Amino acid sequence: MDSARPLAILAEGRFTPLDAKTAVGLLRYRAELVVAVVDSTSAGRTAGDCVGVGGSVPVVADLEGAAARGAGTLVIGVAPQGGELPPAWRRIVLEAVERGWDVWSGLHVFMNDDPELVAAARRTGATLFDARRPTQERPVAARAAAAVDALVVLTVGSDCNVGKMTTALELVRELESRGTKTAFVATGQTGIFIAEQGVAVDAVPSDFVAGVIERRVVEAARGAEVVVVEGQGALHHPGYSGVTLGLLHGTCPRAMVLCHQVGRERVRITRAAGAPAPSSEPVIPGLGELVRAYESAAAWVNSSRVVAISLNTMGEPDAEARQAIDQAARQTGLPATDPIRYGAGPIADAVEASRVAWRGRAAIG
Amino acid sequence: MDSARPLAILAEGRFTPLDAKTAVGLLRYRAELVVAVVDSTSAGRTAGDCVGVGGSVPVVADLEGAAARGAGTLVIGVAPQGGELPPAWRRIVLEAVERGWDVWSGLHVFMNDDPELVAAARRTGATLFDARRPTQERPVAARAAAAVDALVVLTVGSDCNVGKMTTALELVRELESRGTKTAFVATGQTGIFIAEQGVAVDAVPSDFVAGVIERRVVEAARGAEVVVVEGQGALHHPGYSGVTLGLLHGTCPRAMVLCHQVGRERVRITRAAGAPAPSSEPVIPGLGELVRAYESAAAWVNSSRVVAISLNTMGEPDAEARQAIDQAARQTGLPATDPIRYGAGPIADAVEASRVAWRGRAAIG
Repeated sequence: MDSARPLAILAEGRFTPLDAKTAVGLLRYRAELVVAVVDSTSAGRTAGDCVGVGGSVPVVADLEGAAARGAGTLVIGVAPQGGELPPAWRRIVLEAVERGWDVWSGLHVFMNDDPELVAAARRTGATLFDARRPTQERPVAARAAAAVDALVVLTVGSDCNVGKMTTALELVRELESRGTKTAFVATGQTGIFIAEQGVAVDAVPSDFVAGVIERRVVEAARGAEVVVVEGQGALHHPGYSGVTLGLLHGTCPRAMVLCHQVGRERVRITRAAGAPAPSSEPVIPGLGELVRAYESAAAWVNSSRVVAISLNTMGEPDAEARQAIDQAARQTGLPATDPIRYGAGPIADAVEASRVAWRGRAAIG
Repeated sequence: MDSARPLAILAEGRFTPLDAKTAVGLLRYRAELVVAVVDSTSAGRTAGDCVGVGGSVPVVADLEGAAARGAGTLVIGVAPQGGELPPAWRRIVLEAVERGWDVWSGLHVFMNDDPELVAAARRTGATLFDARRPTQERPVAARAAAAVDALVVLTVGSDCNVGKMTTALELVRELESRGTKTAFVATGQTGIFIAEQGVAVDAVPSDFVAGVIERRVVEAARGAEVVVVEGQGALHHPGYSGVTLGLLHGTCPRAMVLCHQVGRERVRITRAAGAPAPSSEPVIPGLGELVRAYESAAAWVNSSRVVAISLNTMGEPDAEARQAIDQAARQTGLPATDPIRYGAGPIADAVEASRVAWRGRAAIG
């Protein structure tokens, strides 16, 4: 990855807040790098208009428009179902490579396995960065992350796509603004594009998920007072729960932040196009039950506490958002906030309190 | 895989009951195919002498000895730490390929990625079967296995290597002997060599573990009354818990059989050679707590009950073994047995009772 060259984000036909998770993440946290979003169906508008972040970053119709803005890297900003590269997008990727642009992809299919893309990249000197290409490491976790001096925090959730990465990044920003030396460990493609490091744990062979994240946590803890790890999936998700538990047991967090989207009642099951409808999607339990589930699961290997609730209140009117936050705090007895809407202060306070308690215990022990 | 040609099992220097899990599994369940075990340090003895199964199958010093017995396939029968192929074994594998033998491997490094082995195999017509080579499928699980008509049973455990595969295979045998149409789903390399089908879930990218096993269960359920799925890892294992939960939520078992080795008090953490000692290995909780952990974790997606306890009493005197079984039954209120020592009858009884209850419920519903 080479962020020296300005980014164009490909979000063709899907530049909406729900679909374009990677685009929104980059626009929120690395806006200074982004010169254009490519979506012919929204060309002429701005990112701020389309997804509420990114302000005046223009949406352009094609790579020519992005080139005019100085783009030199194309990022695939939407995750299609099943992780495949649709033929229409592949043509755009090929065009970018032929222009000599680097391309960043978080898909489960790898550009580096596509002979035509590889040949074109070789010709033009472009770099194809597949964020999900699994590491060749094969470490088996052994609770080593439990032994670091830094306070390790993991964001966990009621479902996919409820705000685990965003909460982690907002927490990092808030702690750093307070002068706390904080390291961020990215575990998914968007986090990796933002942080320019990390590992896409969902693409790691399942035996090594915990071991790979354990290594990253131990490395990140050197010189940091707090390590914030981006969570993935959910214990209640039929497809992704194994990723979630591997990440939890590899990370051995001292503290967890539970993330939930207000109004989401059922786990969203991903379906490939044409696949039969799943049997009913599991109901998301109440926040109190979620706290107990995560704390029980953590304790199978190393005990941990949920210290704060992060609510995603996107789309709710202000009064309803505040009411939901109050209710979450009452239900769980924990501080709650929407870090995007009202700041990550209460979460950072809870993490700092854990750190003080943890250092006190360590000093006594 | 082509089982037409008699098997030689490579277990060089490590042909012991604890080290040679794959060898022992093949000798126990496919003894009719095995003509020799290769271990120069035990040559001249029999399999029965060395590992207690396999009776008079001879241990030979080298491939020449195995060739004299008619071998035409070499199976790597030991899983080295970290899943690598030690150089000394690689030379033996290469010799087998040069003889035109097929080779079956369950290592995490793939023979098919080794140019010299691939070239030799091409020359001699040998097949290199890498059981852990991940499938190219990318299904995301959606509780589809919960909807099959067959009763789905999963073996789960207190740790790795306590008897989950053996319990599953003994249960299959017992149910079949009673006339119940039973399908076995192999999920690890030894099970795959024995059943000549299945998927090594620990090598599947973590996002798709549950989805891949869901497909296998749905396929196996066609025409079967009971589907028995081989479990992997343990919820309390720091390295492998994610595999275990993915398998549990992909399988959606109606019934679970909890496996434990008598006398094992701590989870065994795998360490690469030279790696620092892990912080203390987690204590294995009591059987009652294990039952609750597995039932809680299952219920996050689809409720399930532990219906029987399978104890591995290897090495215990008979009186102690019987006492441990009685104690397990009292602790949990569930039928308990050592299926190798005393037969899988009580486990099969419990599964049949679940099936009757399940069919009754289905008929009412």
